[in-house]
Amino acid sequence: MTAQNCLRILREVKDAAFATVDETGMPQVRIIDVMLIDQEKLYFCTARGKDFYRQLTASGQVAITAMNHFFQMVRLSGRARKLSGQKEWIDRIFEENPVMNNVYPGESRYILEPFCIADGQIEFFDLGREPVFRECLTIGNARKPQKGFFITDSCIGCGECHRSCPQQCIEAGTPYTIRQDHCLHCGLCYETCPVQALERKGI
Amino acid sequence: MTAQNCLRILREVKDAAFATVDETGMPQVRIIDVMLIDQEKLYFCTARGKDFYRQLTASGQVAITAMNHFFQMVRLSGRARKLSGQKEWIDRIFEENPVMNNVYPGESRYILEPFCIADGQIEFFDLGREPVFRECLTIGNARKPQKGFFITDSCIGCGECHRSCPQQCIEAGTPYTIRQDHCLHCGLCYETCPVQALERKGI
Repeated sequence: MTAQNCLRILREVKDAAFATVDETGMPQVRIIDVMLIDQEKLYFCTARGKDFYRQLTASGQVAITAMNHFFQMVRLSGRARKLSGQKEWIDRIFEENPVMNNVYPGESRYILEPFCIADGQIEFFDLGREPVFRECLTIGNARKPQKGFFITDSCIGCGECHRSCPQQCIEAGTPYTIRQDHCLHCGLCYETCPVQALERKGI
Repeated sequence: MTAQNCLRILREVKDAAFATVDETGMPQVRIIDVMLIDQEKLYFCTARGKDFYRQLTASGQVAITAMNHFFQMVRLSGRARKLSGQKEWIDRIFEENPVMNNVYPGESRYILEPFCIADGQIEFFDLGREPVFRECLTIGNARKPQKGFFITDSCIGCGECHRSCPQQCIEAGTPYTIRQDHCLHCGLCYETCPVQALERKGI
């Protein structure tokens, strides 16, 4: 899986969930169209009257997710920045998404402002295949997160984690190892280990 | 539209986006199954190893959204509380959602914890009909939010807002009035009014 393909999934699903934090620190989420994908950048827009617009211009921090019909989920976290050249961007967005004219006919389209996410962390999770598959990716200059459970050298090789794993993604060895790309991050191994040999990173 | 029907939409779509705020104040969002709808309560579950679980047990504040094939969007904001009687609830959830056994076979299901949202604010937005339609509803003891743009008595009746509205949902009068149930909340009237007669509430 590549970051570009993850952005394509968001564009294909199109109606993705965009989450922000409001001025009171509460989570907010709404369905927003992914309007364009270009290189490794994601473009969307919103109207200046909306609380979403205020949250984007305040911190710009946004988390996006969508799932396609194959049960492939993409999560993208990053900072959205407002684009200069509003008219040109909105015109391009309407050109590639003509249905927008039904909602914002004529000149009313210019109440919309274009935003771009150029740097961000991506989590791809495929629940449609067995075993499940996950991968962390990035766009732009975002650093790649290390997430998951890891078995340390304290492992005594008893195999409790291996037997408990819902996805059977823990391999025997010294120490035992978790196949990170097939892990649910459920934490059952972490709870089951009799000697607390597991550590939890970034989740 | 009723709150119950909004919850049914979330259950029918099933894979909804659940947004939280993490310990660093950043927005987080992921796809989670809506497992049960009972009365005016929504039930879901997550594994104890996940950051989602930590965020739910820290503040419990969650915002949920999903859109169905008719372009009807539901947003639900409220506090999720962890349910006692974990085994009974997880068993009921697996009974009504047997596909869960593929991901968490056998006893591994008990790494999951059940949560319920019993009080919350709902926004229903129907982009699939013309004109667009929106309504605010609540479940439990949540207070109903007043959101939108409102034309005050400072209105001079020039009709600029009426002419600018993308959805033509502003009616002439003294003052002019916005048909709130057909408003996009785009804010074009707010910007267009030559005498700043509009006020913005809750958005």
